[in-house]
Amino acid sequence: MEVDEVVCLPRLSRVAVCGGTHGNELSGVYLVRELLKVKKGVMEKEEEQEEEEPLSVLKVLSNPRAMQQCRRYVDTDLNRCFTHIVSLSPSGLTSGTVPYEMIRSRELNAMLGPKGRSGAVDLVCDLHNTTANMGLCLIAYSDCDWICLHIFRHLQRKMPDIPMRYIHFEVSNKESYSLDSVGKHGFAMEIGPQPHGVVRSNVYTAMKAGVQHMLDWVCFFNSGTLFEGESVDVFTMIKHIDYPRDSETRNITAAVHPHLQDRDFCPLHPEDPLFQTFSGETLRYKGNEPLYPFFINECAYYEKGIALSLARKRRNQL
Amino acid sequence: MEVDEVVCLPRLSRVAVCGGTHGNELSGVYLVRELLKVKKGVMEKEEEQEEEEPLSVLKVLSNPRAMQQCRRYVDTDLNRCFTHIVSLSPSGLTSGTVPYEMIRSRELNAMLGPKGRSGAVDLVCDLHNTTANMGLCLIAYSDCDWICLHIFRHLQRKMPDIPMRYIHFEVSNKESYSLDSVGKHGFAMEIGPQPHGVVRSNVYTAMKAGVQHMLDWVCFFNSGTLFEGESVDVFTMIKHIDYPRDSETRNITAAVHPHLQDRDFCPLHPEDPLFQTFSGETLRYKGNEPLYPFFINECAYYEKGIALSLARKRRNQL
Repeated sequence: MEVDEVVCLPRLSRVAVCGGTHGNELSGVYLVRELLKVKKGVMEKEEEQEEEEPLSVLKVLSNPRAMQQCRRYVDTDLNRCFTHIVSLSPSGLTSGTVPYEMIRSRELNAMLGPKGRSGAVDLVCDLHNTTANMGLCLIAYSDCDWICLHIFRHLQRKMPDIPMRYIHFEVSNKESYSLDSVGKHGFAMEIGPQPHGVVRSNVYTAMKAGVQHMLDWVCFFNSGTLFEGESVDVFTMIKHIDYPRDSETRNITAAVHPHLQDRDFCPLHPEDPLFQTFSGETLRYKGNEPLYPFFINECAYYEKGIALSLARKRRNQL
Repeated sequence: MEVDEVVCLPRLSRVAVCGGTHGNELSGVYLVRELLKVKKGVMEKEEEQEEEEPLSVLKVLSNPRAMQQCRRYVDTDLNRCFTHIVSLSPSGLTSGTVPYEMIRSRELNAMLGPKGRSGAVDLVCDLHNTTANMGLCLIAYSDCDWICLHIFRHLQRKMPDIPMRYIHFEVSNKESYSLDSVGKHGFAMEIGPQPHGVVRSNVYTAMKAGVQHMLDWVCFFNSGTLFEGESVDVFTMIKHIDYPRDSETRNITAAVHPHLQDRDFCPLHPEDPLFQTFSGETLRYKGNEPLYPFFINECAYYEKGIALSLARKRRNQL
């Protein structure tokens, strides 16, 4: 915006906080369980006193079967099941061999969506963990969603000790595949490093604070607060890099280089060390431009063929 | 030993290096795969030139099915299957419903044992990872096994930058349950922190160096080297502590306290913070004496009801 202009947006009446979309990412699992215990607790009280129409916060445990087994998923990755076609089409979902997560994605779409329709919840915040050293990230499909970007700035201000980034996956709404794409607005809140199947108190506490500040912001917003324009750094995902692999077995033949491990969001320059083979050789980054690595050595992405992702950084004006 | 006395021990002709006993502890998986590639490589060459009877190093991938699925185990924990009775008795192991790991434990016992018999390999080094911040640990059933303790001292001297401890589980040979108990001597080499399902280059490199130095020591020993007596700190496991749990659901209700997380082998005193509940309350250690915590927040032990283990430290004279 080049001139000062007031943008008015409709209030956010229904917000969903989802955990356990991946059953072994435990911060969200235990946080949503805790929120479900606090039925009418602190989170909604303050806001209810001030407003006539209370904010509805849906607390959802997305993949109970995977949680029960402490696995990412049972049959297929639930967080890849929410494309327009798959989540809405009833065809092919009647047979007994349908993956559990396909069925569960339809239930969640009915509960929080339908995706792309007026009945969908206003905002989905889906809670995730990563083994990568990424701090707290909001991951969204848009780099100009006013709601998501302002929530991000609010969290940055309220939690100055937590490294925080906004990541943008450039995918159209039709192609968007994750649970958070079911809401009118949505993002994944991704916090790491934490091993899957483990809950670390510091990560849990950061997520709890992040969710509380997000809900606080929604209350400010709904009460008619005017927010100043400002700038936000946005990391737009450009490409993924796979591990070097044996051409026959497809086993990986190298690990992320120790100079790169844990350096998420530190610029990676051409010829910087990328991998160290199991025999000790260093392999270097052969790109043409410096980019920002993230999801470095994420456990769940070995099977997806991703050793790290690379982003370009840009400053967005709100 | 109160007087200088020379103890003579038989040479170690057959050593087994095992990885993938837990299929998602990846340093050992990739290290043993690498060693299998180097058929007649550096590790055995030097020693073969000097001795008539070459050292036989068996490289074993213990649980291929679990490795293939990148899980700790398929049916049951393989590293609990090697008790005297279970590993040797053929009864009850013919039915089709026998857990895969029970069958595999018999194969491994036939390959490396039989446990407790003269035909067993001289030394088993079983490679493991932990999500706990434990550095490199040798874990053994004896606090006076001359071979294991001298290997430990050799590794300590050769790898001064790696925090290193010797842990002793006070269990009789009959009750010992792990793969390393099949050899005449044996230990687990446990390195962390590393998330299960992830390989970190620094952890892989430490394990590779640890195995190389262990084999070097065996060669020195076999060549008739005289080793001086010396002292070693030994941590003897005293008890386990479980997470606080909901009495109905058995779900955990707290995480390891942030002041304790990652402080493996730092003394835990009575009234020190132990857990932080998901609602934010601090729970304190109620023991009577300071003890040394280890395996703090190990991923695989949630299902075993172990949040941490506690040890007493003692100096052993070799």
